[in-house]
Amino acid sequence: MSRFIVGVMGGGETATADHCRLAYRLGQLIALQGWVLLNGGRPAGIMEASARGAKEYGGLTIGILPGCDSRSASAYIDIAIATGMGDGRNYINALSSHVVIALPGQAGTISEIALALKNNKPVILLGWDTAALFNAYQRSGQLHTTTTSEETIQLIKTISQS
Amino acid sequence: MSRFIVGVMGGGETATADHCRLAYRLGQLIALQGWVLLNGGRPAGIMEASARGAKEYGGLTIGILPGCDSRSASAYIDIAIATGMGDGRNYINALSSHVVIALPGQAGTISEIALALKNNKPVILLGWDTAALFNAYQRSGQLHTTTTSEETIQLIKTISQS
Amino acid sequence: MSRFIVGVMGGGETATADHCRLAYRLGQLIALQGWVLLNGGRPAGIMEASARGAKEYGGLTIGILPGCDSRSASAYIDIAIATGMGDGRNYINALSSHVVIALPGQAGTISEIALALKNNKPVILLGWDTAALFNAYQRSGQLHTTTTSEETIQLIKTISQS
Amino acid sequence: MSRFIVGVMGGGETATADHCRLAYRLGQLIALQGWVLLNGGRPAGIMEASARGAKEYGGLTIGILPGCDSRSASAYIDIAIATGMGDGRNYINALSSHVVIALPGQAGTISEIALALKNNKPVILLGWDTAALFNAYQRSGQLHTTTTSEETIQLIKTISQS
Repeated sequence: MSRFIVGVMGGGETATADHCRLAYRLGQLIALQGWVLLNGGRPAGIMEASARGAKEYGGLTIGILPGCDSRSASAYIDIAIATGMGDGRNYINALSSHVVIALPGQAGTISEIALALKNNKPVILLGWDTAALFNAYQRSGQLHTTTTSEETIQLIKTISQS
Repeated sequence: MSRFIVGVMGGGETATADHCRLAYRLGQLIALQGWVLLNGGRPAGIMEASARGAKEYGGLTIGILPGCDSRSASAYIDIAIATGMGDGRNYINALSSHVVIALPGQAGTISEIALALKNNKPVILLGWDTAALFNAYQRSGQLHTTTTSEETIQLIKTISQS
Repeated sequence: MSRFIVGVMGGGETATADHCRLAYRLGQLIALQGWVLLNGGRPAGIMEASARGAKEYGGLTIGILPGCDSRSASAYIDIAIATGMGDGRNYINALSSHVVIALPGQAGTISEIALALKNNKPVILLGWDTAALFNAYQRSGQLHTTTTSEETIQLIKTISQS
Repeated sequence: MSRFIVGVMGGGETATADHCRLAYRLGQLIALQGWVLLNGGRPAGIMEASARGAKEYGGLTIGILPGCDSRSASAYIDIAIATGMGDGRNYINALSSHVVIALPGQAGTISEIALALKNNKPVILLGWDTAALFNAYQRSGQLHTTTTSEETIQLIKTISQS
């Protein structure tokens, strides 16, 4: 069996320091669980912070890069997958994650939430709310919201056992 | 210069009869302007209705299919592009359209709106509202809302001349 | 039914004047048959020459671009599909063509021949030979060789009727 | 710095027992070097054999799957990347590998060799010869041939240090 992968999405250059702290802590907790962290691989915002958290706690990190060159990955990425497919890689992020955690972000992050929901992946919004847009998925139990990294880990456990 | 392409997105099997009528009329008007209509190519919902409207008024229709076989395209598609990339094709829909018109849909449609906004394409929501989610893009003038197909055509003209 | 698409592959910047003349003539003949010409869309080599031939004889041309911007297409492309997926678009070239014609090229062209053969598309090598590499496909009747554009058109007719 | 990735390509269901033995041994040696093995991830032929070799010697294995579901991966794959992009994933295999080793295969494998050469990756043909097709790349020193897994490992070291 291949390993359990938690996708962590969220803003790049636009991420705030608070959101990066949340992502860093989430990365730590994912590593402590022995799970693999997957993100968009770039050295910015939620990607960099979550990978750093995971690495500092001994985790394994996968970066799915938009570009052609694995040298563009964050220094905290162990395995750089160079797709050369731009934002087309957002689809791969969604499909390869067993659960997708979305921290605050803009259109790129929203595309990942949408692609994950479309492809029947559980999605957890950490620290924000996508307003009414995805209401139907919240009602059906596919989309969840949390406010702390600890609560997020508990929810992943519940989801992945069901 | 390659031709002006209007992307028409929206629900597939879940589209209502009212929304399909709106898409059908929009397809007609796009054809009357001499523009090319591009959509997801499947024989369902907004895709089928918009392509049918365009074909019945002499337009040219392009379908960007998720699957490997161009025979799966709607009968109203002239040019079937078989991507074999599943929802990865949503990125191609966004990039290949000069303007993206989004009628009501679910996560697939929202991913196309998000990917279009992320890639600096003007987006027009026809007949619905994505609530507060994309507020920042509405404020910056990249995301618009309309209620009729006629109004949509006028707005496309304004956008594409600016 | 969507229209019959002939994919024309071959070298870009490395194409010789002779090969471009062959591609130009092939484009003319494809247009005269009322078929759609599809290629990689860039303003170089076999792509530019085949699209120019088709346009000058009233044909319809589709360019599947590696980049994100349809303005990078050859001036002889009617419909620019911007994939943003680099050479990942070679797969789309293969899948979207009913028949693939490969003029001389290098690794990019060979990848398109290989992807077309892998996906059960008939392939015609025009003006060159891929040596022993694809022997098995020649024996099974999926891979053919021709020396003139006229002969190529006749072969496409035979293949597409069978 | 992300880890050094060796891509191992070759036939799936069509691979012979001899070629699978070669792939199995190569997987072992890659693991012994502490390198990461990347392949197409399916439970067949060269993919299965090379991943099994690597796993049995404590290596880390990445499978880039054509489908949408990571459960379709070989049991010897640690990290399943589900692309949902069919053979479009062959491009990702090429870009993500620092060196590509190609064992005997058919059109799919040839497409991976071609995409790797096109994107400036060193390629080693292990146990076969692609005849004259890629001659230019052999002359320029980008394409190499070997006959044993041990010789292949030595060559990877030489290439990756230069």
